[in-house]
Amino acid sequence: MVNKEDVLEAHKRNGGKVGTIGKVAITGMDDLSVYYTPGVAYVCEAIKADKTLAYEYTGKSNTVAIVSDGTRILGLGDIGPEAGMPVMEGKALLFKKYGGVDAVPLCLDTKDENEIIKVVKAIGPSFGAINIEDIESPKCFRIVDRLSRELSIPVFHDDQQGTAVVVLGALVNALKLAGKDKKARIVVNGAGAAGLGIIRLLSFAGYKNLYSLDRNGIIYREREDLNDFKKEIALKTNSEGLSGGIEEAVKGSDVLISASRKGAFGKEIISLMAEKPITFMLANPEPEISYLEAKEGGAYIAATGRSDTPNQINNLVSFPGIVKGMLEVRASGVNYEMLYAGAIAISKSVGGRLSQENIVPSVLDPKAASRVASNVAGAVAEAAVKTGLASVNKTRQEVSKITKDAIKKYSRLEKRIPHL
Amino acid sequence: MVNKEDVLEAHKRNGGKVGTIGKVAITGMDDLSVYYTPGVAYVCEAIKADKTLAYEYTGKSNTVAIVSDGTRILGLGDIGPEAGMPVMEGKALLFKKYGGVDAVPLCLDTKDENEIIKVVKAIGPSFGAINIEDIESPKCFRIVDRLSRELSIPVFHDDQQGTAVVVLGALVNALKLAGKDKKARIVVNGAGAAGLGIIRLLSFAGYKNLYSLDRNGIIYREREDLNDFKKEIALKTNSEGLSGGIEEAVKGSDVLISASRKGAFGKEIISLMAEKPITFMLANPEPEISYLEAKEGGAYIAATGRSDTPNQINNLVSFPGIVKGMLEVRASGVNYEMLYAGAIAISKSVGGRLSQENIVPSVLDPKAASRVASNVAGAVAEAAVKTGLASVNKTRQEVSKITKDAIKKYSRLEKRIPHL
Repeated sequence: MVNKEDVLEAHKRNGGKVGTIGKVAITGMDDLSVYYTPGVAYVCEAIKADKTLAYEYTGKSNTVAIVSDGTRILGLGDIGPEAGMPVMEGKALLFKKYGGVDAVPLCLDTKDENEIIKVVKAIGPSFGAINIEDIESPKCFRIVDRLSRELSIPVFHDDQQGTAVVVLGALVNALKLAGKDKKARIVVNGAGAAGLGIIRLLSFAGYKNLYSLDRNGIIYREREDLNDFKKEIALKTNSEGLSGGIEEAVKGSDVLISASRKGAFGKEIISLMAEKPITFMLANPEPEISYLEAKEGGAYIAATGRSDTPNQINNLVSFPGIVKGMLEVRASGVNYEMLYAGAIAISKSVGGRLSQENIVPSVLDPKAASRVASNVAGAVAEAAVKTGLASVNKTRQEVSKITKDAIKKYSRLEKRIPHL
Repeated sequence: MVNKEDVLEAHKRNGGKVGTIGKVAITGMDDLSVYYTPGVAYVCEAIKADKTLAYEYTGKSNTVAIVSDGTRILGLGDIGPEAGMPVMEGKALLFKKYGGVDAVPLCLDTKDENEIIKVVKAIGPSFGAINIEDIESPKCFRIVDRLSRELSIPVFHDDQQGTAVVVLGALVNALKLAGKDKKARIVVNGAGAAGLGIIRLLSFAGYKNLYSLDRNGIIYREREDLNDFKKEIALKTNSEGLSGGIEEAVKGSDVLISASRKGAFGKEIISLMAEKPITFMLANPEPEISYLEAKEGGAYIAATGRSDTPNQINNLVSFPGIVKGMLEVRASGVNYEMLYAGAIAISKSVGGRLSQENIVPSVLDPKAASRVASNVAGAVAEAAVKTGLASVNKTRQEVSKITKDAIKKYSRLEKRIPHL
């Protein structure tokens, strides 16, 4: 396990985890005249005449802003923008390493919904995509929905969409192994960002037999304590109007996906499920129940967010490739077709033979991670092109190749970092 | 000279000029647990308990945001945020190469003064300093003044302060060569960002015999068309209440510093000046009159912004070192003592023998550039410490050494860039 002192020391050594680097070298005055004054004026004029050329001549084409207000950092809650930065920097590091994407961490000194929206809209021109991260719900949903409408670049919400993509990828494989299909009865426990994202994507993907729970129990249309997003969940789930708690929900279910907290339920509830139960326990860093407890409870397939047991469900499998794919075709937004394509790419990228202990690609092996990200990027880009959200046409293969090369390029550079 | 097609191609080759890089390498799952979940939670908790630890554990300590609204880009005017990006990216590249500073270019999709202020305040926690760039005046002055009061990190205005620092550095040497001193009669032509910055810094430095002109002529206290900033200039200059145009102003003057536009005056006005006239023509890329014309007109010392004639006055000599110096001692703001110290450091960093053709350090030679930046950073940091704006104590020598090492480190990395 990681040791606190080691972690602090590792963060202190170089003053954080990400910095900037030139994409070009300056070797003399001639280079200065090309990259700075007076030459740069030609580039400014070209973009002034055609704004889309910003994608050609600036870093916009490959840069995502990771924006948080620090209100829902990991399991730590509202810890403020400064304290949220280490997570955003970590994410920026992962975007680069696992997707070849330049990512700028930005923690904001405001929790006001409208101000956050204004800030993100204002910085929009400098980026090819926005990643909203660790903002408390339901505020984050309103922010993402409004920004998606009002910005002409994709506004990706990893807590919601990235999680849904990897969950669906794993679920497709798990159902296959269990001999089940889209008619499976699926319970999603927890109606925060992850829960909403999963319900939305599963519903889009044709899974109709869905049930959702928040801390007040099963969500059904008549419940009077539902905010707009839970009302949306109610419309997409539980057509029979079932009420009750987690026992009532899981009874006879094929799948239990929980994005809640450690101890939210015990392993005994698995015995209430249908044959060959599938259980995903996504609470982080401690799952609702451990992989082993789930197996003891009778789970046919179990998965958690942890790396020390089989079937790790980790967004690292999804977000770098999704964002790289969007950027490569200069997508103007994110849609479910793109997310669904990413999920299917993940389900097909499991290394080795599919088995109860191997339903989702691992991020442990850098080669595997690069393969997954390239596959996801290609699939997402293709879906963006097909659905008319792409501004440039590239094939799935082209985008996969570009992604793989970018990751390889960074991994060569990364070898130098410890010696710098 | 630079060729348009070459410049565009050079910008297209790698999709702009700056990207991100990890400061640490991820070699396996252990590293992920340290730099991302679950380990990163220790860092978040530490910063939550003491916000100043953000300087220890995140990139805040070495990162500046370069913020523009695209309203006054080079001589191109209001060309919008997308078209302004190539300049901000160029600047970010220079910050890294010449100062070892991580710099994030941000062009904003708003020209509204209050919105710009809100956005910069919101992103504040993510940065150790802000560089306001190429925003039209006088809006930029109001923005810088308010942000300086309202943010607890330095808000540096390169157009104003960076220019003033290099100008004062060059002026100190020019006056020395001409056998003149602070009593010299100095005319500053142009009352935009550069003009105001020069007047403010010269005035602080004890130069009392100052005159300033805008497009309506000499600024004097009774003029009724003065905005607040020109009123400030009026109070700092022209105690005799002189009115008229550039001829009246330069008559008998020792120094003419112009930050105006090509052709703003002819070489013949130099003949109106006192003995051994000193002329700095800062219009960019084409000076008011060329170096050779100034010499023909009788200038004892001439300087321009150009690299192809002697005495290039280039902010590149000042801004990387100033900002690095501020960051190293975690300054809470910028004051004139820091700027003055930077200027004196520049005046003392001229390589080789001081002469009429050698009054300011050159940026042509990377070694010279590194020496200047280290000297400036050390001097600025020392002044911040002495004036109580520094949050950590480091000596001038320590900061110079850190800066030199950071530049050297980047230059090793830079050699790899063309091969990446």
